[in-house]
Amino acid sequence: MQVYEGKAKRMRPLSEREVEVVFKDDATAFNGQKHEIFPGKGALNSNISELLFNYLEGKGFPTQHLRRVDERTLIVKRAAMFPLEVVVRFQVAGSLQKRTGLADGTVCDPPIVELYYKRDDLGDPIINDDHIRLLKLATPGEVVELRKLALQIASELRGLFSKARIELFDMKFEFGKTPDGKLILADEISPDTCRFRDMDGAGMLDKDRFRQGKGDLLEGYREVHARLMRILKAS
Amino acid sequence: MQVYEGKAKRMRPLSEREVEVVFKDDATAFNGQKHEIFPGKGALNSNISELLFNYLEGKGFPTQHLRRVDERTLIVKRAAMFPLEVVVRFQVAGSLQKRTGLADGTVCDPPIVELYYKRDDLGDPIINDDHIRLLKLATPGEVVELRKLALQIASELRGLFSKARIELFDMKFEFGKTPDGKLILADEISPDTCRFRDMDGAGMLDKDRFRQGKGDLLEGYREVHARLMRILKAS
Repeated sequence: MQVYEGKAKRMRPLSEREVEVVFKDDATAFNGQKHEIFPGKGALNSNISELLFNYLEGKGFPTQHLRRVDERTLIVKRAAMFPLEVVVRFQVAGSLQKRTGLADGTVCDPPIVELYYKRDDLGDPIINDDHIRLLKLATPGEVVELRKLALQIASELRGLFSKARIELFDMKFEFGKTPDGKLILADEISPDTCRFRDMDGAGMLDKDRFRQGKGDLLEGYREVHARLMRILKAS
Repeated sequence: MQVYEGKAKRMRPLSEREVEVVFKDDATAFNGQKHEIFPGKGALNSNISELLFNYLEGKGFPTQHLRRVDERTLIVKRAAMFPLEVVVRFQVAGSLQKRTGLADGTVCDPPIVELYYKRDDLGDPIINDDHIRLLKLATPGEVVELRKLALQIASELRGLFSKARIELFDMKFEFGKTPDGKLILADEISPDTCRFRDMDGAGMLDKDRFRQGKGDLLEGYREVHARLMRILKAS
């Protein structure tokens, strides 16, 4: 069975039901134009993602996660992936700032959902429901369901992180469909795929450190991991 | 009252009810990076746009058009403009080709609607309904209405142009709201705002000639105007 090498993970199907996911130490930004290796990033992200997927399972959201193999390798359910990135935004930053001209940090109430076509060769462009229908990326009913699931999960996570004094500005989700047609949360949730800002002035704790060349990347990731462990133990 | 100078038109409010619109001879592309003057373009576009607005009024669509002053000047109804470009696409070309990777000419059935935030300083970015709500550019009800109107008008025009052996690939609309709250078609409909392809192999008859540096721009515009006159006289 074929290995799929992504920018931050390597996927290898093990059987009809399971896939092995290795979290790499690579950081990339601007559609791959910026690239660096941060030894330890893969382990941190796989741990943060596992904690969050387990937390979400506990809240009743079906996820792809099954079990851990080693410090940066997880086994997940095999699923047909939607070639979509579902982004939920609670506060303005990054491309939403460029798109709207609104100031960084502006609150989006209710939150914003954006859909992107996951295709490296096209630069993962933003798309709308009509494009999804034209490209047959999901049915209209699935799009409604994906949007609803993403908003619910995002809201759950925003609440969790606020307890850790972290403001969750935005996050990217990917979803898959199991053979029995159930939509499940897939891919990862980590400082690579979320914007985390410290509520007490320590700034960015996520990949924006790398994008903007500000601060030690792994220090931010370690801080997110440590705070998350603390909160989850306390609850 | 203030004069508003756009890239292709100059608008001057005459009263609480009327605005004078002068169609300029300027052609711009790539967000203003390419710019040239084509003497006669303003007159051609104002004529094509007037013909189409009159045709659409006859079909029951309320438009901004009132009357002609001179060969490139129209008087239109004053309206509060939505800062939106509503694009309807029947066949893939231009940015839709880049966004989807689909081949030029691929049929979109049903047609695609895209919404753009009309803001030069941001490069007129594509937006979705959530962005519109966040930016308060229109109410959700107005967005539904704008989409519906755009699709109806586009379908009417696609039929009209097919009689002139012209394939209408896509077109951009702008809408305004009159003081009594009615949505009306505004701005212009011309080879600057539509993609017209000859059905008999003569290629592009629109601003793509300028964007791509292919063929005499005005020759295409004159052809569209002449065929439109012929069709409208015959009907």
